[in-house]
Amino acid sequence: MRRFVAERTKHLIKRNFLSSSNNHSFLASQSSFFSSSSSSSTIVDPSSMDSSSGVTLQTINPKVLKCEYAVRGAIVTQAEKLNEQLKKEPGTLPFDEILFCNIGNPQSLGQQPITFFREVLALCDHPTILDKSETQGLFSADSIERAWQILDQIPGRATGAYSHSQGIKGLRDTIAAGIEARDGFPANPNDIFLTDGASPGVHMMMQLLLRSEQDGILCPIPQYPLYSASIALHGGTLVPYYLDEATGWGLEISNLKSQLETARSKGVTVRALVVINPGNPTGQVLAEENQKQIVEFCKKEGLVLLADEVYQENVYAPDKEFHSFKKIARSMGHEEKDISLVSFQSVSKGYYGECGKRGGYMEVTGFSADVREQIYKVASVNLCSNITGQILASLVMSPPKVGDESYVAYSAEKEGILSSLARRAKTLEDAFNSLEGVTCNKAEGAMYLFPCLQLPEKAIKAAEAEHTAADAYYARRLLEETGIVVVPGSGFGQVPGTWHIRCTILPQEDKIPAIVERLTVFHKKFMDEYRD
Amino acid sequence: MRRFVAERTKHLIKRNFLSSSNNHSFLASQSSFFSSSSSSSTIVDPSSMDSSSGVTLQTINPKVLKCEYAVRGAIVTQAEKLNEQLKKEPGTLPFDEILFCNIGNPQSLGQQPITFFREVLALCDHPTILDKSETQGLFSADSIERAWQILDQIPGRATGAYSHSQGIKGLRDTIAAGIEARDGFPANPNDIFLTDGASPGVHMMMQLLLRSEQDGILCPIPQYPLYSASIALHGGTLVPYYLDEATGWGLEISNLKSQLETARSKGVTVRALVVINPGNPTGQVLAEENQKQIVEFCKKEGLVLLADEVYQENVYAPDKEFHSFKKIARSMGHEEKDISLVSFQSVSKGYYGECGKRGGYMEVTGFSADVREQIYKVASVNLCSNITGQILASLVMSPPKVGDESYVAYSAEKEGILSSLARRAKTLEDAFNSLEGVTCNKAEGAMYLFPCLQLPEKAIKAAEAEHTAADAYYARRLLEETGIVVVPGSGFGQVPGTWHIRCTILPQEDKIPAIVERLTVFHKKFMDEYRD
Repeated sequence: MRRFVAERTKHLIKRNFLSSSNNHSFLASQSSFFSSSSSSSTIVDPSSMDSSSGVTLQTINPKVLKCEYAVRGAIVTQAEKLNEQLKKEPGTLPFDEILFCNIGNPQSLGQQPITFFREVLALCDHPTILDKSETQGLFSADSIERAWQILDQIPGRATGAYSHSQGIKGLRDTIAAGIEARDGFPANPNDIFLTDGASPGVHMMMQLLLRSEQDGILCPIPQYPLYSASIALHGGTLVPYYLDEATGWGLEISNLKSQLETARSKGVTVRALVVINPGNPTGQVLAEENQKQIVEFCKKEGLVLLADEVYQENVYAPDKEFHSFKKIARSMGHEEKDISLVSFQSVSKGYYGECGKRGGYMEVTGFSADVREQIYKVASVNLCSNITGQILASLVMSPPKVGDESYVAYSAEKEGILSSLARRAKTLEDAFNSLEGVTCNKAEGAMYLFPCLQLPEKAIKAAEAEHTAADAYYARRLLEETGIVVVPGSGFGQVPGTWHIRCTILPQEDKIPAIVERLTVFHKKFMDEYRD
Repeated sequence: MRRFVAERTKHLIKRNFLSSSNNHSFLASQSSFFSSSSSSSTIVDPSSMDSSSGVTLQTINPKVLKCEYAVRGAIVTQAEKLNEQLKKEPGTLPFDEILFCNIGNPQSLGQQPITFFREVLALCDHPTILDKSETQGLFSADSIERAWQILDQIPGRATGAYSHSQGIKGLRDTIAAGIEARDGFPANPNDIFLTDGASPGVHMMMQLLLRSEQDGILCPIPQYPLYSASIALHGGTLVPYYLDEATGWGLEISNLKSQLETARSKGVTVRALVVINPGNPTGQVLAEENQKQIVEFCKKEGLVLLADEVYQENVYAPDKEFHSFKKIARSMGHEEKDISLVSFQSVSKGYYGECGKRGGYMEVTGFSADVREQIYKVASVNLCSNITGQILASLVMSPPKVGDESYVAYSAEKEGILSSLARRAKTLEDAFNSLEGVTCNKAEGAMYLFPCLQLPEKAIKAAEAEHTAADAYYARRLLEETGIVVVPGSGFGQVPGTWHIRCTILPQEDKIPAIVERLTVFHKKFMDEYRD
C-alpha cells in the first residue's frame, strides 16, 4: 500500500502541474480543492441579495469568499446541530454524545489544566487576595511567589492595562530565558512578539510578506488550514510541496526545489517556506538532518522560514526529539543575519492545552531593523495581546523547577497527560490500521492521526452525487452514525485521488475503547455498503 | 475664535477637495497627512537592504508601509526611551515621571479594576477553589455564584478550551439580555461576535467590505487611527467627513452628503460610514436627532453603519445621554432588514477600563444569512477570542444588581471612577482654555480632550525645519520638558492648517494639579520662544 501511494503521489503531482494553466493562479487555485467539503457555502445564491446596504456575496471582498477553514467547516456545523438535538431530544440519535475529534482542543474533551498555571493566573487576576491569610491555604507557596514576580514585572502591577505592543517586557525576558534553556543559544526578548495564540502571528507575517497573487508561500500538503486561509485572506498564492506519506510524511528537499522552480517559472515570487514541526495534521517529527537541509534551502533561496513549532512539547516517539529551527540554524553556524526565521509557539498545545486563553508568541530573527519596525507597527494597531495569555506564555516557557513546592504535582500532571496522549495515539493508530483499506502513519508528535482511506469507487460515486468529496462524505456518515467528528483530508490538502481524515488523539482514555468500537463497526458497515 | 475656525474649516475642506487630483487615490492620500508625526519611519533607507531573505521595506506589502498608528507612534517610542532613562539614571531629566496621556489606558495610570469583575475572573481561572471553605472568606458570595453560573454555561466547564467562534453561547445570551435592557429592543445572541477588544471586530468588517482602493469608508476627521490604519491595511480608501469644531464637533449631514458625492464622482464605491459615539478623539456625545439623521442617511445611501460605541458608559455632560444606533434605528421603526448595522463594544473603556483583558464584542445586524456566514468564517480562522475577555464582556453587560452582596461596593467603585473622570475632564478643559491661543471643546464623553492650538508662525517654521508637523513638534517639546505624553492632532486627521493635541483625562486626580502647572509653564515658555 505505501509503495502504491508513493508512486501515485509522484504521478499525481506531475499531472497536477502539467495540466494546470500557465499563469500563477494555478497555484492559488489549488487551495480551492482543499475545501471541497465546505465549498457549498461559497456558492452564490442570488435570492440572498436583499441587504439594504448592498452587501452581498457578490460585493464582499472575494478574498474572504475564497478563504476556507475546514477545521470549523460544514461537518462541525452539523455536529453542533446534532449536539443541540441531543440536549433537547435525548435518545433520538444512534449515540448519546458528540465526540469532537476535529480540533486540537484538549480541555474541551476533559483534559485538566496544569494546577500551578491556573493558580498563578487567578492570583494575577485578583492580586488583592495575595496578602490575605486564607490565600496561603488555597494556593501553593510558589504560585504566590510567582504571581508577585509577575506583578512586579508589570508597570504599576496593572494586569488590566494595555502592555507594550510586543508584550510585557519582563515576561518576554522570561520567555527568552526559556528559549535559551531549551536551545542552548541566546534569545533576545526584543525578538519576542506575544500574540493571542499562534494564529495572529501567522496572519501578521502573511500580511507583511504578501503584496499580491504574484507572491507565494511554500506550504506543506497536507497543511493546517490556517495557512491556506491566511494566504487567501491576504491575497497571496499557496505554493504546495507534498509530504511523502510513504516515508512517514517525509519532507524531500528535491520536492521543495522543484515546486519552487515551477512557481518561479510561472512568475511567482516565493517569499517564505512554512514548516510545521511536529506536523499538523500529519504528526511526523522532523529529523535533525532534514531540518538542516531545510535551513540550508531557505538560506540559499532567500526564503523566510516560518516555523510552526506549537507542538514542541508533543513528541511521543522515543527515538525522536524536538529541535527548534533556530537551534538548528545556530548550530550550523548561521547567525541572525544569515537567515530570516520566525518561530511560532502557543499555550494551546503541549501538555498545557490552554486553547481558550489565547496566548502565544513569535520569535522574529534575521530581519533588518526597519522591517522589524513595520512588524511592530502592525502589532501596535491591535494594541497588545491579552495579558492572561501573555502570563501563561511566560509560564509554559518557565514552569516550576526541582525544589519548588509545586514541582512534584506539576511533573505528575505533565507526565500523566503526555504519556496518556502517547498511549491514545498508539491505540487509535492500531485501530485505524486494522480497518479494511486504511493505512495510518505513526503519530510521532502533535495531536492527530491522518489515516489514508482507500474508498471504494461506489462510495466515491455516491459522494459525487452529493457534490462533495469522498472523504467529506465518509466524515459526514461517520458523524451521523457514531457522533465522532473528524475533518476530511480535503480540508488540509492531499495528493489528488487520495482520501484521508484527521482525527485528534484527545478523547480521554476511558472513552477510547468505545470510539474504537464505534469506528470499527461503522467502517465495516460503510465498506459493506459500498465495496466494489 | 470658534467662528474663525468654522469659516476656515469650510474654506479648507473646499480647497482640499478642489486641489486634489481627479482620481480616487486623493482620498486615500489624505490618510498620509494624519501621520506626518511618524512618517519618518516609512522613509526607505537603501542601506537596510541586507536581509538574506530579501525582505526589505521595498519588498514588503506596501499596505503595511502605508498604515500608520499615531497613538503608539514616534512620540510614544521616545517616551518609552525617556522612561527607561528615568529608571536607570534618575534625576537626569527635568521631571521624575512620564505621564502617558497618549492612550485610553486607565489602569496604567492607577485606575483600579472593579473588584467584583476580578473576583469572578479569578474564580473562573481556578475553579477548583470554588468548593473550598477559605474561598468564602476571600470572595463575595455573588462572585462565587456568578462564577458557577458562568462555568455552567461553558461546555465541560472548560475555561481553557476554544469556544464557539462567536464566543460562548451562554455569555452571548447574557450580553444580548444586557443590550435589551439598555435599549428596550430585542437583541439576538446569534448576532453577537465576541472579540479580543473592539479592534479585531473593526478589522473583520474592513476585511469583509474592502475589495480594492475603489472601495471607500466614510470616516470622521478627526478619527481614532484604528480606522485609517485598518483601511490602509485592507487596501481601501478613507473617505473623510469633517466634524465641525466650532459647533462642539458636530456632525453635519450636508457634509456627509457632499463627501459621499465627491467620492462617488471619483469612482469610489462607499461601503460604510464609521461613527464614533461618544467621540474619539473629540469627546462629543451625539444628539438623538443627529443620530436619526445618520441612520436615515445610511439607509438611503445603502451604507453599512459601523458604530463605535465603546465609550457608551463614558458620558459626563448632564444634559447628554448615550443611545445606541440600534436603539435609534429600531425606535424609528427600521427593522433588521432595513439597515446593516454593526455596533462595537469593548471592556477596555467605560468605568471598567480593562484594556489588558482584550474583551469586546460586535453586534452584527441587517446582513443576509450568507454574508453572516462569511463573517463567521473569518472569525473561525482565528478560532475564538480569549475566554477571560469573553467572561469580562458578559460581566460589563450584566454587572451586580440591587440586592446582590457586591452591589453597594460595585456602585461606589463605578460612581467614584465616573465622577472623578468628569471632574478631571473639566479641570483639564479649563486649563487648556486658559492657555494663550488654545481653545478646547468640552469632553461630553469618552476619555479625551482635543484642544486646538493656534501656533505661531515661527513654531510652524521650526517644525518644518525638522520635517515634522507643528503639533508633533509641540508634543515632542512638551514630552521633553514635562514628561507629559500626548498625541499630535496630525495622528487623527484635522482640518489642514489647524493644529491639535489629544490628551487623555486619565491621570489620577491627585496628579492633575501638577500636570496643569507643568503644562501651563511649558506652554508659556513655548509661546514666549516662538510668539510672532
